[in-house]
Amino acid sequence: MIHTIDQLALPGTFRILKIEHYRAAIDAIKTMKIRGAPAIGAMGAYGFALALQGLEQVDMGLIDQIQEEITSARPTAYDLTDGILFVRKNIEGITNLSDVTRISLEAAEEYADRSVKACRAIGLHGKDLIREGANILTHCNAGALATVDYGTALSPMRLAHEENRKFFVFVDETRPRLQGAMLTAWELGNEGIDHAVITDNAAGYYFQQGRIDLVITGTDRVARNGDIANKIGTYEKALLAKHHGVQFYIAAPFSTIDFNCESGMDIPIEERNESEVLTLMGQRIAPEKSRAFNPAFDITPADLITGIITEHGIIKPGDLASWEPDNG
Amino acid sequence: MIHTIDQLALPGTFRILKIEHYRAAIDAIKTMKIRGAPAIGAMGAYGFALALQGLEQVDMGLIDQIQEEITSARPTAYDLTDGILFVRKNIEGITNLSDVTRISLEAAEEYADRSVKACRAIGLHGKDLIREGANILTHCNAGALATVDYGTALSPMRLAHEENRKFFVFVDETRPRLQGAMLTAWELGNEGIDHAVITDNAAGYYFQQGRIDLVITGTDRVARNGDIANKIGTYEKALLAKHHGVQFYIAAPFSTIDFNCESGMDIPIEERNESEVLTLMGQRIAPEKSRAFNPAFDITPADLITGIITEHGIIKPGDLASWEPDNG
Repeated sequence: MIHTIDQLALPGTFRILKIEHYRAAIDAIKTMKIRGAPAIGAMGAYGFALALQGLEQVDMGLIDQIQEEITSARPTAYDLTDGILFVRKNIEGITNLSDVTRISLEAAEEYADRSVKACRAIGLHGKDLIREGANILTHCNAGALATVDYGTALSPMRLAHEENRKFFVFVDETRPRLQGAMLTAWELGNEGIDHAVITDNAAGYYFQQGRIDLVITGTDRVARNGDIANKIGTYEKALLAKHHGVQFYIAAPFSTIDFNCESGMDIPIEERNESEVLTLMGQRIAPEKSRAFNPAFDITPADLITGIITEHGIIKPGDLASWEPDNG
Repeated sequence: MIHTIDQLALPGTFRILKIEHYRAAIDAIKTMKIRGAPAIGAMGAYGFALALQGLEQVDMGLIDQIQEEITSARPTAYDLTDGILFVRKNIEGITNLSDVTRISLEAAEEYADRSVKACRAIGLHGKDLIREGANILTHCNAGALATVDYGTALSPMRLAHEENRKFFVFVDETRPRLQGAMLTAWELGNEGIDHAVITDNAAGYYFQQGRIDLVITGTDRVARNGDIANKIGTYEKALLAKHHGVQFYIAAPFSTIDFNCESGMDIPIEERNESEVLTLMGQRIAPEKSRAFNPAFDITPADLITGIITEHGIIKPGDLASWEPDNG
């Protein structure tokens, strides 16, 4: 059984979700009860291991099918693939069922442990980007909720705050799912970090006023050339940052980097249901006859990104290809 | 008595608001039951005339006070000042009470008539910017609801549609008040113009994909140098348009141009209540401890604007100063 926080209930209710079947894991990912790149990765690893616990024999065809089923729960997030592949590699060639079930679970646990360490390392590498008195903009939620712990974009803020540095965070509300207003604000509030929620429309105004010194966001997939996919609206903020000479950082563990993906043009963009745009709190806002488009992510090209804060240090997007792990 | 559409009830309910006292006119403007630059201008003119109907004598001190009270209902919208000044000029020097009440009402009516004609002329001058098959982006609502008729930004679309031209409109939902999703979508739907609502975050994605050919928005105040103030988020769209080589037009009657305002830096930006950001449909979305910033407008500098579509033709922002009316 997997225990995780039901992110749809926040910030009103803190509820633990118990997942007993891998299809419930898929459902939790699709409905965004669990969301955030590394958190989806860990859920993918655990969900896959959970599915393997239910096998009656080591049937590679069935395992392939389950792997594909979980991988396709959300198309843009690369961590999902990464987490599942980590478990898969650990059981490759093993034919004994009890070994497969034990090893897959150990692998999922190792994956989650590595993810925690990576996020903390991101914080250590990124915290000194935040100077005393800095004003930071962040988009969506890339905090503890989006990861197994610490967060990616919020990890440097958490560690700078632990060192008693004073800074302020502008939190984009992040329509349509409002992860900024609902989750990032909740995490920052819990940590005692000073912040204010703004509409996604308002960031430009604060850039114009010189009130934003630094942008840090997470990402759902990094391509080999340094282009990244992140929550819809990230591209607009990156363009603003470039125009106003503000540094724009992406925080991501290596699990989010897809070295097989050449550029942002190759990253699939998930289109979610139009009801996320047309209704609010269960009430229709737009006229009944109107429809909506709802792309969940956009691509920020490498040339708008100052650096990618990883567990191995801050890497310039153009230098990423040289970090490709040896697959030989 | 003034009759106007209660815009807060749309798109669910079409309700006519009856305003019998000028303070109710001020309240309708402040609470945004009536909104949109030229509509506020007409409401200002009628509201001022309505106040004058209630006078017991021609007391210039009291008239000044009422004028100031209505003018300050919303600080950014210049039409409000323009509409009130039009009525004021017409009664200047008149000492007979019955003349003041009669002339002020006639002036308000003339102002509204002129506004209708200006909006239609904007449509005529702007309609050929919309080519067959064009994809247009608009932000907020600058349609019939925002004006006395036709609209400003929507007027060229209305007239192009009357000529059976086919085009498509991306409607920014326009947080925090959602005038795009609630009002612009309603107007376009009523006209039978093909459109889809998108989150404000999604415009960048469609620019990247080359799916936006033209941007037309309204404005709340145009400065002498061609800088404009419009609904928060407009600046972000203008920067995107510039970056992607897309033409960015502002539609505005001369009543929105403040020739006494040198540049965008001199335009006051209204800060509205944080509850517009922190709650949705009456429900709190952000944590109780979190606060919000809520600037209602931002400044789009002249160098991001291709042209201003006025009742006198399309004017380049840099040429605006030469159009200053002779005040001598």
